Amino acid sequence: MRIVVLAGGIGGARFLRGLKQAEPDADITVVGNTADDIHLFGLKVCPDLDTVMYTLGGGIHEAQGWGRADETFTVKEELAAYGVGPGWFGLGDRDFATHIVRTQMLGAGYPLSAVTEALCDRWRPGVRLVPMTDDRVETHVAVELDGERRAVHFQEYWVRLRASVPALAVVPVGAEQAKPAPGVLEAIAEADVVLFPPSNPVVSIGAILAVPGIREAIADADVPVVGLSPIVGGAPVRGMADKVLAAVGVESTAEAVALHYGSGLIDGWLVDEVDEAAVPAVTDAGIRCRAVPLMMRDTDATARMAAAALELAQEVRA
Amino acid sequence: MRIVVLAGGIGGARFLRGLKQAEPDADITVVGNTADDIHLFGLKVCPDLDTVMYTLGGGIHEAQGWGRADETFTVKEELAAYGVGPGWFGLGDRDFATHIVRTQMLGAGYPLSAVTEALCDRWRPGVRLVPMTDDRVETHVAVELDGERRAVHFQEYWVRLRASVPALAVVPVGAEQAKPAPGVLEAIAEADVVLFPPSNPVVSIGAILAVPGIREAIADADVPVVGLSPIVGGAPVRGMADKVLAAVGVESTAEAVALHYGSGLIDGWLVDEVDEAAVPAVTDAGIRCRAVPLMMRDTDATARMAAAALELAQEVRA
Repeated sequence: MRIVVLAGGIGGARFLRGLKQAEPDADITVVGNTADDIHLFGLKVCPDLDTVMYTLGGGIHEAQGWGRADETFTVKEELAAYGVGPGWFGLGDRDFATHIVRTQMLGAGYPLSAVTEALCDRWRPGVRLVPMTDDRVETHVAVELDGERRAVHFQEYWVRLRASVPALAVVPVGAEQAKPAPGVLEAIAEADVVLFPPSNPVVSIGAILAVPGIREAIADADVPVVGLSPIVGGAPVRGMADKVLAAVGVESTAEAVALHYGSGLIDGWLVDEVDEAAVPAVTDAGIRCRAVPLMMRDTDATARMAAAALELAQEVRA
Repeated sequence: MRIVVLAGGIGGARFLRGLKQAEPDADITVVGNTADDIHLFGLKVCPDLDTVMYTLGGGIHEAQGWGRADETFTVKEELAAYGVGPGWFGLGDRDFATHIVRTQMLGAGYPLSAVTEALCDRWRPGVRLVPMTDDRVETHVAVELDGERRAVHFQEYWVRLRASVPALAVVPVGAEQAKPAPGVLEAIAEADVVLFPPSNPVVSIGAILAVPGIREAIADADVPVVGLSPIVGGAPVRGMADKVLAAVGVESTAEAVALHYGSGLIDGWLVDEVDEAAVPAVTDAGIRCRAVPLMMRDTDATARMAAAALELAQEVRA
């Protein structure tokens, strides 16, 4: 079975771990979000790609969900001693090595997709991890700070400001000019199923879909497309999906997110059992919907979610 | 007193520490060798500038003579796990931060001299440290390896090969096109004395003198120029000066190095007491010469060497 998964960071990575357990023999291509990439200290940092790579490769800081296990922060402390910031982004020494290798390869002319493949040579995530694009896309968030409206990098909104102020607009800068990375459209065209994990519908999956050609390829492909709601009981399971959904005029409900994607894009939608009441409305909108437990408490629970998504895809196909 | 010192790495840095003790109120400008700079992992590494900065700023690994005290090597281990080399160059985590800051500033368009000044804002070395040039100069060493003649970067010759094969030629690539960094010629013109510490006469002081304008400025300045022999008893006190001296056809003796610089450049020359026999020949060549203890055993001993050099400069001036 060939599965394509669009993935953000923690949610996408953990879902993938469950999916691999549920379907160990599947051929999985992960289209990773790169719109939250950021240049820090002159280095190219790809938080979502790395979270997928570290999680599936066994290098992740489990409790934290991002960054490396057994991490130390000597480089960061030294940079602070030089007065060089930002200090709000927690890059550890092990993590720095990844960004140094990536930046060196990019500087030598390799596209991000080739760099990601090279990094995965070490991590062996058991999936094919492809960035959504080799071009630079950066999600900016418009906010009002001290009475002034300004745009900040998504990481600044999320990590520095901790999403504490409303997101007035969310723009994946550069997306319009970006091209899908090599292999992305081919993987979608050859897929047996496309899955949207419970990743952020705006800044993760939304950013991937904003790369011209990707949304169209998924909508036009003759394969079931099934998503899992990142909203449970009216709130995001983790992260700040509610804040960025508000910026695009979408309510933070399992139903509203399904309708935001729309029946032109997704064929199936899983909501959590607490959101069972949303099933009829989603179904009425032409999206096959089912309520199942959607909390990724551990890999077993997550594998059951993945199995339910594949089962729903099977129903769609039949 | 305004003193200009041309400096390589360990020898130059330790001499400077002695000089500062001997003349605490002196206004010292250090023209640092940058011809052993190297790009590693996409980062700009300036071993000699850093050795001076760390030594005078209290951050040096004392026993080793280069690199940072209390160093860890997490980043390096991770780079090795990615299969990214070279592994033969020992960059520690603290040291990496310096190279990250430097590379980021260079990437933002600052010249190396401005970057060095910014790094010294943290280290406060008590001297003005100026790279010999803002342009890229790299010493390459011609060697025969496996029957084939090829050129290697100086660091590869010194650190990887440990100078274990003869140096057939030593070329400061790029020096001819390089311009002295801002402030270098001005400092020489305004100096009361110019000192050559017991640094390598070929790859350190020789590389600095290879930048067009610097040798001429020193030769033409109406100030005493005094050097200290890096060769004691027919061998370099440390390092591989003998190997690279052979490449330029100079014997490894205190006398031969003095004559290599020549009376057109230096006015005074200190040799170690064990080389007292060299004094008449150097003197005959028109260079005032004296034999004093030249082993930098500790800062006190080094301060006495610096004082002897300044005393010799005073004699020249009189």
